[in-house]
Amino acid sequence: MKMFKKPKGTEDFYPSEQEVKNKVFEVFRKVCRKYGFLEVETPAFETVELLTKKSGEEIKEQLFLFKRKDKEEFGLRFDLTVPIARMFVEKQKELPKPVKWFAISRMWRYERPQAGRLREFYQLSVEFFGAKYAEADAEIINISIDVLKQFGLNENDFVVKLNNRKLLEGLLLQFVKEDKVDSIIRIIDKKSKVNADEFNQMLAEAGLQLKDISKIKKILAADTIEKIDKLEKNAIANEGFEELKQIYEMVDKRFIQLDLSTARGLAYYTDAVFEVFDKNQELRSIAGGGRYDNLVELFGGQPTPATGFAMGLSTLLLLLGKKKAVPKADIGPDYFVAIVGESARQDAMKIVAEIRKKYNVETDFLRRSLSKQITYANAIGAKNLIVIGEEEIKSGKIKVKDLKTGKESSVSISEI
Amino acid sequence: MKMFKKPKGTEDFYPSEQEVKNKVFEVFRKVCRKYGFLEVETPAFETVELLTKKSGEEIKEQLFLFKRKDKEEFGLRFDLTVPIARMFVEKQKELPKPVKWFAISRMWRYERPQAGRLREFYQLSVEFFGAKYAEADAEIINISIDVLKQFGLNENDFVVKLNNRKLLEGLLLQFVKEDKVDSIIRIIDKKSKVNADEFNQMLAEAGLQLKDISKIKKILAADTIEKIDKLEKNAIANEGFEELKQIYEMVDKRFIQLDLSTARGLAYYTDAVFEVFDKNQELRSIAGGGRYDNLVELFGGQPTPATGFAMGLSTLLLLLGKKKAVPKADIGPDYFVAIVGESARQDAMKIVAEIRKKYNVETDFLRRSLSKQITYANAIGAKNLIVIGEEEIKSGKIKVKDLKTGKESSVSISEI
Repeated sequence: MKMFKKPKGTEDFYPSEQEVKNKVFEVFRKVCRKYGFLEVETPAFETVELLTKKSGEEIKEQLFLFKRKDKEEFGLRFDLTVPIARMFVEKQKELPKPVKWFAISRMWRYERPQAGRLREFYQLSVEFFGAKYAEADAEIINISIDVLKQFGLNENDFVVKLNNRKLLEGLLLQFVKEDKVDSIIRIIDKKSKVNADEFNQMLAEAGLQLKDISKIKKILAADTIEKIDKLEKNAIANEGFEELKQIYEMVDKRFIQLDLSTARGLAYYTDAVFEVFDKNQELRSIAGGGRYDNLVELFGGQPTPATGFAMGLSTLLLLLGKKKAVPKADIGPDYFVAIVGESARQDAMKIVAEIRKKYNVETDFLRRSLSKQITYANAIGAKNLIVIGEEEIKSGKIKVKDLKTGKESSVSISEI
Repeated sequence: MKMFKKPKGTEDFYPSEQEVKNKVFEVFRKVCRKYGFLEVETPAFETVELLTKKSGEEIKEQLFLFKRKDKEEFGLRFDLTVPIARMFVEKQKELPKPVKWFAISRMWRYERPQAGRLREFYQLSVEFFGAKYAEADAEIINISIDVLKQFGLNENDFVVKLNNRKLLEGLLLQFVKEDKVDSIIRIIDKKSKVNADEFNQMLAEAGLQLKDISKIKKILAADTIEKIDKLEKNAIANEGFEELKQIYEMVDKRFIQLDLSTARGLAYYTDAVFEVFDKNQELRSIAGGGRYDNLVELFGGQPTPATGFAMGLSTLLLLLGKKKAVPKADIGPDYFVAIVGESARQDAMKIVAEIRKKYNVETDFLRRSLSKQITYANAIGAKNLIVIGEEEIKSGKIKVKDLKTGKESSVSISEI
């Protein structure tokens, strides 16, 4: 007989995995609410027109697309920022500003599946619309740090790499032609993934002279406010540097590493950008974000500054796994009520219903022998065992056995 | 400038709607866990082969389908039972039986959107694998009742219509040819949606004689155990009646209405079937379910009895709305910290961080005047207002204003 498989690059969440996911999401939710962010949710799919607006037609390669009745074309969302921004634009006029929203949900990309990167994946997405000052960026960075701290992680476990797109672009524009800046940034963004020789070669192939490559290396070596301060800067670089300094003053410096190579690809970021990595940098980035002041206008809204970040479940769980900080999945019922003899069932079920008012309770549905019921109770991780037969029903006295310690106590039903 | 719209038949959940949804889902979760059910989640899409296995090719009309690189064809899931059953089959051998799972998630059908029926919709799905006895069906029905009771609803608000497919089929087979039974059941299932004349006409068009139509009316009029008992029954009808009686003994009869016209269409149900309606039957069904003993085998698993039900969010919210029982969306922050003067910001943010250890706190990110900050605090529903300026920082004494009562109290920061 044929066995059906789930689609490649997707996950089933069996009970203990689902419980871990729920607990991680509860931490996300709690921290976001502490910071005054409110949860929203959007449809799983959007029009292709919206989905390609920001990233161009090339994103279509990564979209799960579908058409119905040859009318409008839709695609599964590939992030949460795009639909949340669309939602914001639809009610922009009536919403009190600023608007602080988050979403915890799944999205889809058609890519080659790899560790920490699936075709269906879950993310926390935090979006802050309508605040142009550095304190909004700092708030976003602080949440991303606070979320990880809530799992018990500290500055020995992860680092936030912080940069500013204007600073980097401004520095490059002093010796790189404007039409080449994007491709150079794309190479710089890959620096941590290649070795020094490969990095040099990529820059040379992009048309840079040896002296320009040295300049880039000098820029990327500037990893403190003092060192960046000493770099020669044009007006735009100075503007970016001012923003960077202001943000740096408002975040927890123990976690921050200034890193001019952090550019977040060619995404929609305009100013601050940051990425969170495990300290040993063995994993893909845990979170990433920054300021995107042009997106709302691009989507047809009033020009609105915005900043935000996203954190993926998958890589986070890999990090928590390494640090032995994965939330415990506690899914066993509080009580298993074993039923001895079918004549006791009706009364036993009343006792089950009574205990369920306060506790999670499982019982036998297979009319099994007592020993098989106890085996099952242990298999599902029940915490306590109660045996109900005619005797217990007559006397109203029942024995509760703690299945961990083996300790037994005799109680009346009303005492549970 | 063009404004992008969400796809037709889908919903955006703005913060208060999302909060209501989360609260409803928490009730689902809590009740299911009380009954020993564990939460699972499956991918949003499955292979078309799986999706069409149970319902045939005609379900494709309702599927959102997509292909990638001309390989396997996928479709968005249209229910949760199919993927959960697939998940069960994949680990059937290693799982302790019975297996009691639930999922709370969304699914998609390409249909004409109407009240309580969208193209993207959310459901609770409860599935019980491996128990063939009536107590498992009773457990499923009791959960569906208990969920609604948790929202404060009672027997004046909703009714559970209970039937048994074998009973109905057996009764019909006594005078309807076997190859016509399915089409007659399909008509019977629509009885509540048409008037008496239309119902007669549909049965006549299906080829029934007047005397057979009267027999059907007599069957459908039997709405108590006693009346059903008096109906002439063949072996299969008697078997179904026995099951029905056993289940009836184990559920809360205040909510139950025996109704032989409840057939749940031509779905995969084999024995018990039930549907939950608002008492006035103004809405589509709130929940529905039953026993489906053939599905696991159909999906390639070992033959396994199964029973379960699904409850949709959308119709439930319509009912809760009518009964003024929708959970309250409490999304305003506990405190709004107004900042007076930019020189106070750094210290004010420390106070904000301190209060956030215990509460949800919002503050100003737009460097607004105090009066504008207070307007905003009220607009977002903040419960308390704190104003921080140089004076408060110097003295360490702050005033907390309850924004509902207007009452002010003076406290030190550590007292909050």
